[in-house]
Amino acid sequence: MIGLASAKVDEARLWRRHMDMAKLGATPKGGVRRLALDANDAKARALLLDWGRRRGFSAFIDPIANFFIRRDGTDRHADPVLSGSHTDTQPSGGRFDGIYGVLAAFEALEAIEDAGIRTRRPIELAVWTCEEGGAYLTGTMGSSVFVGARKLDDVLRLKGTDDAPITAAIAATRRAVSEAADRPLGFPISAFVEAHIEQGPELEAVGKTIGVVTVIQGCRRFFVEVDGEDGHAGTVKRSRRRDAFVSACDIAHALRRHFHDPDEIIRFTIGRFVVTPNAPAVIPGHVTFSIDFRHPDDGVLRRLGDAVADVCRAHQGACTASVREAVWAKPVELCGAIPDLIEATAGRLGLSHMRMLSGAGHDAMYIAQVAPVGMIFVPCEKGISHNEVENATPADLAAGARVLAEVLVELADRT
Amino acid sequence: MIGLASAKVDEARLWRRHMDMAKLGATPKGGVRRLALDANDAKARALLLDWGRRRGFSAFIDPIANFFIRRDGTDRHADPVLSGSHTDTQPSGGRFDGIYGVLAAFEALEAIEDAGIRTRRPIELAVWTCEEGGAYLTGTMGSSVFVGARKLDDVLRLKGTDDAPITAAIAATRRAVSEAADRPLGFPISAFVEAHIEQGPELEAVGKTIGVVTVIQGCRRFFVEVDGEDGHAGTVKRSRRRDAFVSACDIAHALRRHFHDPDEIIRFTIGRFVVTPNAPAVIPGHVTFSIDFRHPDDGVLRRLGDAVADVCRAHQGACTASVREAVWAKPVELCGAIPDLIEATAGRLGLSHMRMLSGAGHDAMYIAQVAPVGMIFVPCEKGISHNEVENATPADLAAGARVLAEVLVELADRT
Repeated sequence: MIGLASAKVDEARLWRRHMDMAKLGATPKGGVRRLALDANDAKARALLLDWGRRRGFSAFIDPIANFFIRRDGTDRHADPVLSGSHTDTQPSGGRFDGIYGVLAAFEALEAIEDAGIRTRRPIELAVWTCEEGGAYLTGTMGSSVFVGARKLDDVLRLKGTDDAPITAAIAATRRAVSEAADRPLGFPISAFVEAHIEQGPELEAVGKTIGVVTVIQGCRRFFVEVDGEDGHAGTVKRSRRRDAFVSACDIAHALRRHFHDPDEIIRFTIGRFVVTPNAPAVIPGHVTFSIDFRHPDDGVLRRLGDAVADVCRAHQGACTASVREAVWAKPVELCGAIPDLIEATAGRLGLSHMRMLSGAGHDAMYIAQVAPVGMIFVPCEKGISHNEVENATPADLAAGARVLAEVLVELADRT
Repeated sequence: MIGLASAKVDEARLWRRHMDMAKLGATPKGGVRRLALDANDAKARALLLDWGRRRGFSAFIDPIANFFIRRDGTDRHADPVLSGSHTDTQPSGGRFDGIYGVLAAFEALEAIEDAGIRTRRPIELAVWTCEEGGAYLTGTMGSSVFVGARKLDDVLRLKGTDDAPITAAIAATRRAVSEAADRPLGFPISAFVEAHIEQGPELEAVGKTIGVVTVIQGCRRFFVEVDGEDGHAGTVKRSRRRDAFVSACDIAHALRRHFHDPDEIIRFTIGRFVVTPNAPAVIPGHVTFSIDFRHPDDGVLRRLGDAVADVCRAHQGACTASVREAVWAKPVELCGAIPDLIEATAGRLGLSHMRMLSGAGHDAMYIAQVAPVGMIFVPCEKGISHNEVENATPADLAAGARVLAEVLVELADRT
């Protein structure tokens, strides 16, 4: 029976839907800026709702605006099989990160429908809210709240970088899909499969189409505040300055040494760096910056991450550095039935494949706390992601959707 | 006759006017954010116009929104004596920088009026537009355009950091003082005296009240653009990154070495530093930062400033650095009749005084290209400026205004 669903996957339809979604927040350089819970992120849910309605699927939304499109199974009481990812992007994001996993799931639902396959379990597309962090600088928000790893109440107190409360953005997002029925957080699910572009160069480099993820590396994220004193650039002597930019720069250098790894397994990034008051003639009195540190080994994450505050303080110079940890996601091993099934399915469909590590974090790492999970990677051009030029081929995207459709049917117990 | 005008200087009135002005753009921390040509900067001109009207003074405005309040002299054809400074502040500025020179001039006009003194020349208060740079990152704008050192047309093409055209802001500022008569740029002036807080610690340190400025140190300002490539913080290996933050940090370190001066005469500041896209999980593809470099010696300014572009390129690493020079203000010597007159007047009024260098740039350095110029400094607390806690005493402010009133009467030829 293998192949009935995957044969109905429509490469052109899947590509067209990517291009339709890319209009929501399109940037002049061909990328997408669709920040979590902004107007375009709400429109993305509304578009999915509309597409789903035309196929007779139902829709649900939970208190953090995680959004679900459901194709019923024959057993109304069976826990659903979920598949999806996120609709939000980085501030200068691309057309595939996140949305591919959502549209591959929708394509799988349609292909299964087109093939007339009945499954015992319902199959649902899931959109997890705010995977990228958006204006709230808090990533994998929806999936972590769904599984209880973050408290809903804590998240509802967040404000955006524009100081607007997240509650207003959630309410607006929910209004955009008012037909969707309310659902509680953390309902039982039988399995979760997330398709995603690789966001790294490995599949392309070795010429494979399908990546079977076996581990998602861990990530610790910190925010460092450096407090100094504003002063006049023309008058204050160097030795009397408390220049927060100078201290932050020294700390950044020390952190680069701290995280230096000749084997290049460690990923260390200062991606956000905000100077105040940020005027050419003023010695900066304040700097805030982020540290993103990733590694597949929990011991390394612990050892190097635990020393971050000490490194910052040791190099704070005339200023005062304080460190707050915002994320500590342990490495997640994806092993067992679902990765095996993904691998076997790719093989049966004649698609080249390999087992691999995920350098990026994904909603799957939180859902893995409550259900068996698998991830399907497809190549992206030159491994470039979190960039407006992010690209992937229609053929590779469709190949991943074919594997996904077959895997979902299998997990949902064909009847 | 010395002392008639200065005796009418009213310390309480002068202080009250500072507090009234500080309401326009007041910040929660007790400072002022009144960016050049913003609504509060326009209101500051309107308030001066209102005060001037009550004393029978007339008002004028030129095409760059430089604003003038005039007390007539007996000779309608005589070139005026000007005194003033600026009403705009740094983004996190204080209550005295700039506005003191404006209010001291207004206090002098009132004191001269109250003393019933007639002068041959008119005496005018001058507000020079956008001394601090504001949203246009272009300081001493009004004074440099007034003397022809910058072209009006070039300035009128500027946009703010919010992308709004400066022409709209100038038009709004002019509308706020629609009673003021139009005036051309660069009308002839017989002398200019600028009162200012020192913005440095020297007067306070040696316990003197009046600083007689003999040289304003020169300033070169550059903007550096660092171009790299956005990338995913979790996937891209260090050796494959083109991280604009890393390159900008390396350049900043190299510049600190380049400008290192054990004698601490050099002033070198990176005050503005903007990362794009500025998200924790994205390797930054772009950084722009400012370099502010000051020294009293033109040769040093030339030698070290000319090497800036080479230093930046030598440390650009995997990115590409480009350098644009935005300001090159040569050191300006203030010598001759007006500084001598300021010094003599302070002595006659029994005020302690000293000759000194100005570490900060001032509108006076441009006006010096077209007229004899002098500057009167008064102490500011701990030398702190370009900071919301900037402070000065009512007594010191009044002392400076007393010297200014006498000097202006003298320069305007008492009749």
